[in-house]
Amino acid sequence: MIVNITLPNNTTYDITIDSLKQLSFDRKVVIVTNPTVSGFHLNYLKSKIDAKELSIVTVPDGEEYKNMATLELILEHCFEHKLNRSSLLIAFGGGVIGDMTGFAASIYQRGIDFIQIPTTLLSQVDASVGGKTGINNRFGKNLVGSFHQPIAVYIDPFFLTTLPKREVSAGIAEIVKMAVTFNKEFFIWLEENDLNNESNIKKAIAKSVETKAWVVSQDEKEKGLRAALNYGHTFGHVIENETNYDTYLHGEAVGIGMVMANNLAVRLGKMSQEEALRVKNLLEKYDIPTNYSIKDVESFYEHFFLDKKSLDNKIKFIIPKGIGGCEITDAISKNDVIEVLKGFQS
Amino acid sequence: MIVNITLPNNTTYDITIDSLKQLSFDRKVVIVTNPTVSGFHLNYLKSKIDAKELSIVTVPDGEEYKNMATLELILEHCFEHKLNRSSLLIAFGGGVIGDMTGFAASIYQRGIDFIQIPTTLLSQVDASVGGKTGINNRFGKNLVGSFHQPIAVYIDPFFLTTLPKREVSAGIAEIVKMAVTFNKEFFIWLEENDLNNESNIKKAIAKSVETKAWVVSQDEKEKGLRAALNYGHTFGHVIENETNYDTYLHGEAVGIGMVMANNLAVRLGKMSQEEALRVKNLLEKYDIPTNYSIKDVESFYEHFFLDKKSLDNKIKFIIPKGIGGCEITDAISKNDVIEVLKGFQS
Repeated sequence: MIVNITLPNNTTYDITIDSLKQLSFDRKVVIVTNPTVSGFHLNYLKSKIDAKELSIVTVPDGEEYKNMATLELILEHCFEHKLNRSSLLIAFGGGVIGDMTGFAASIYQRGIDFIQIPTTLLSQVDASVGGKTGINNRFGKNLVGSFHQPIAVYIDPFFLTTLPKREVSAGIAEIVKMAVTFNKEFFIWLEENDLNNESNIKKAIAKSVETKAWVVSQDEKEKGLRAALNYGHTFGHVIENETNYDTYLHGEAVGIGMVMANNLAVRLGKMSQEEALRVKNLLEKYDIPTNYSIKDVESFYEHFFLDKKSLDNKIKFIIPKGIGGCEITDAISKNDVIEVLKGFQS
Repeated sequence: MIVNITLPNNTTYDITIDSLKQLSFDRKVVIVTNPTVSGFHLNYLKSKIDAKELSIVTVPDGEEYKNMATLELILEHCFEHKLNRSSLLIAFGGGVIGDMTGFAASIYQRGIDFIQIPTTLLSQVDASVGGKTGINNRFGKNLVGSFHQPIAVYIDPFFLTTLPKREVSAGIAEIVKMAVTFNKEFFIWLEENDLNNESNIKKAIAKSVETKAWVVSQDEKEKGLRAALNYGHTFGHVIENETNYDTYLHGEAVGIGMVMANNLAVRLGKMSQEEALRVKNLLEKYDIPTNYSIKDVESFYEHFFLDKKSLDNKIKFIIPKGIGGCEITDAISKNDVIEVLKGFQS
């Protein structure tokens, strides 16, 4: 199945959800990957690619390496292999690989093409589509980067066969996010179907990608609507940060974050108790954590301001309006947030 | 006088060539400058700017600091001052400041606005317009960067009053470049008028900017026509590199490079001896160097391949076709180039 995305400036590309077909390139190609993905799948990928010249750069695995030093490693490799402006990078891995490869492609000789071949469920349903690239620094996540759209995205569910169950669940959290914010029908389908089934997970990926593509085509640069995809992330980023990024996977923190956002929505009368519970149940069905123990609610609240979306001292919250809709607002009172956080106090 | 530039994707901005007017911004503003420019003109600039919050980051002066470390200095300052996505950077200096500020603006939180206020003739007539940004690395110049258009360019000829005469001449070299490649009438005007005259230099800046704006509006990403602006640069870059960037100013190396390109054009029958001489005379009228002593022509030739425009082992030459036209080609035989280089052998 193919989902097409067309941006306001007429940039367009296809997202193919299917077994990887043979790919042929009359140019130099560099695959950027990490040792984990490479160990499982690099030979398979290489067997699918014909290129004028193919080389591989393997960078350390993990969010803690999503930084300027690793970015420079990738760029160095490209220079050493004398890539020119018609060369191509392929991101082969999860979101970290995708974000860094996209960023490298956007600044190598002022921009070259790149392709996303995401191998985790999280990057398949979310990160690989939409052209957000970036790295972290000591001020926060994704604070340096660019918008640089891939020329194609190939999503092969086969790669999920080697993905740890916990990472599959973390990806499902982002699928649930898409459904709650934009598509009630999809949410009900998710309640009624088991994503451990191969054909169902493929359908869910396609539906998520379709939703994401629609959102990005409306608002590539996140001036408005696209911010809705940060549902669960405002809280989630603080959780990740408080736990030094080593306790929860990103999708897991987002899972907890959605529950927090829902509690806020319930408090504000935007969502019923029952709807909040349905979301929680769906998350728990896949063992996605929904609870978190806050030690100090004031300190948790202060952490919001470390996030790039709030460098101007305003916190942007995505508040679901029931299931299948949402509202983006920076006008939530501190008191309302604190009261919700108290519900998670240890 | 105002020159407007509109790109194929409808991005548009004005280039104002005049005394700086009062500028008002309802957002945080960071001025990026260097100690030299700051010493002469920062108070003047500050007196012209109203902003929600204004801060200054001063980076070391010189091409050797146009690197990742300085870029990170600028970004750090922005994070420390909590700039958000609506904040603004102002590049206040020559081409190095402009290129780095533009690059920083393009990747800070995936892109914020910036304004160019160029203070050297070279950056006024060329670098400040067109959105090329970047830094150097050990592989060459401007190898990492992006296309990021400023939202406005303010060219105030007053800043030239403190510019060393040699730098004025280096800027004139780029003016001559515009005329030779695109505008015969302008070239004749340059032959007949003295750029040491205040009103003439203003006219020449405007004419150059007009030419540059037209070229960039045709071909923002340098897929074709824009490469013509590299006339003199293919040779010039090698000269800069051979002399460790400490003997010639960029514009001076380009001056010599144009003479070399002209000799090649004469050899290929694209330009008459007399036309080549007229260009040389015009350069020498402003004490722009037109000679260079090549020690080893083979080694000079090999140096071409270090340039980013030739990472695919093809060298792109801009060959003038008489005065006021040019041709971009990578099909010049090594022998022709070597024979021309021999004319400069010491």
